[in-house]
Amino acid sequence: MNTIVIKIGGAAGLDFAHAAADIAELIRAGNRVVVVHGGSDATNDLSRRLGIEPTFLTSPSGHTSRRTDAKTLEVFQMACRGLVNPRIVLALQRVGVQAVGISGLDAGLWTGPRKNAVRAIVENRPVIIRDDYTGTVEKVNTRVLTTLIDAGFTPVIAPPALADDGTAINIDADRAAAQTAAALRADSLILLTNVPGLLRAFPDESSLIPEIARAELAAAEELAQGRMKKKIMGAREALEGGVARAIIADGRVERPITRALAGTGTVIR
Amino acid sequence: MNTIVIKIGGAAGLDFAHAAADIAELIRAGNRVVVVHGGSDATNDLSRRLGIEPTFLTSPSGHTSRRTDAKTLEVFQMACRGLVNPRIVLALQRVGVQAVGISGLDAGLWTGPRKNAVRAIVENRPVIIRDDYTGTVEKVNTRVLTTLIDAGFTPVIAPPALADDGTAINIDADRAAAQTAAALRADSLILLTNVPGLLRAFPDESSLIPEIARAELAAAEELAQGRMKKKIMGAREALEGGVARAIIADGRVERPITRALAGTGTVIR
Repeated sequence: MNTIVIKIGGAAGLDFAHAAADIAELIRAGNRVVVVHGGSDATNDLSRRLGIEPTFLTSPSGHTSRRTDAKTLEVFQMACRGLVNPRIVLALQRVGVQAVGISGLDAGLWTGPRKNAVRAIVENRPVIIRDDYTGTVEKVNTRVLTTLIDAGFTPVIAPPALADDGTAINIDADRAAAQTAAALRADSLILLTNVPGLLRAFPDESSLIPEIARAELAAAEELAQGRMKKKIMGAREALEGGVARAIIADGRVERPITRALAGTGTVIR
Repeated sequence: MNTIVIKIGGAAGLDFAHAAADIAELIRAGNRVVVVHGGSDATNDLSRRLGIEPTFLTSPSGHTSRRTDAKTLEVFQMACRGLVNPRIVLALQRVGVQAVGISGLDAGLWTGPRKNAVRAIVENRPVIIRDDYTGTVEKVNTRVLTTLIDAGFTPVIAPPALADDGTAINIDADRAAAQTAAALRADSLILLTNVPGLLRAFPDESSLIPEIARAELAAAEELAQGRMKKKIMGAREALEGGVARAIIADGRVERPITRALAGTGTVIR
């Protein structure tokens, strides 16, 4: 009996049916499964429908993150909890999984500090933004997860997380999934995405890197672009937290999780 | 140790702090508490922000309900789960309650038939609407609730419910709270609202009806207007389901739940 944490992309229109069937089979085989998702694309769409143009900040070290003012935080929560989460929960229930959708806020599941000063480069000049609702998950209260899993339910976790100051914060779901896997001492963390794994020459899918040893992770993090950077960071954090392996794998194919567990994708151990 | 189901209004801007402090005290005293909320006002606001004018249908028997096409169902879910639910969860956590926000979809908590033909009167003519996502909660799967409560968590339940055809449906949260209280064999169902209870001459608050016996419920249902009608129906359904008493009470005051439990409001038994 293994514990498996699976991060599913939150892209609108993405078909969860393949992943759902796989998850149902894993659970029937006695595995303990936790599903985590984001909602970045759904947030962009909803934001535009509400007349708020999504804005992204680039940090001095080159990481990008969503500018999350109070209004954007609301949009982010509506997209994650109101659109993406029920879509996954319903897809799982259709294949017999007793899915329960919760968020990082619930019972203080995901907590961490809110950034009180976000450093960004805007028009080539460094600026500091103080009203941002972003942060990083540093602590995972696993009790609500183990309570649900022990009773036969499958938790499906949506952002946001709970900041130390009692507010909701936008966090990166890949890294939150990694922290969750570490806190549960999971056997595997699977990060599904819309490419076959880490590509040496993005977007050339034939340049897939099938395996990364821990010592090579810093170089891989340099190589990765955009959201893939966060996945590599998450993989590293999971391994540092005691997870046996992290797999970045293609979520667009049939049986995506079975394939990932069989080693298809980028395996980091 | 009593089981108490509390329905809180979902109105935007409503201050949950009073109710939250009361709930924290009830839980510390060893009671089992389930919180249910709606999201009607938040749905109206969000709908207008998205350029969708909220529409309500009046049935031949005079009941009104939201016209819930596929787009409105999405808005309803975003408002209930993305805006109202986290607001209540955070208010409860601030006073030390381990609140867990779930929806009627989760683990098939609230199920019932989707209306495949909604009869309405539009411009004085009867019409039948077939693409509506509305229905009624007929069955409550209490296992996810008792699992959470037994572990010390307080469930905060948002609409929608799960229809027999696997879709999400808009349901009346007062009546869903009543079905939940019945399924849990609750001692009390408290329906908080923005008036002191059922008024004989709405909106004259001095015309409060302090108590209704079961035999008088049909007359009370006739008397009630708008959303109050659903509360009286819910109270009747809860009593029929074995709940000892239902109390319709003012949610705008300090200690609203303590007051309701002490008999302030309209007590139905």
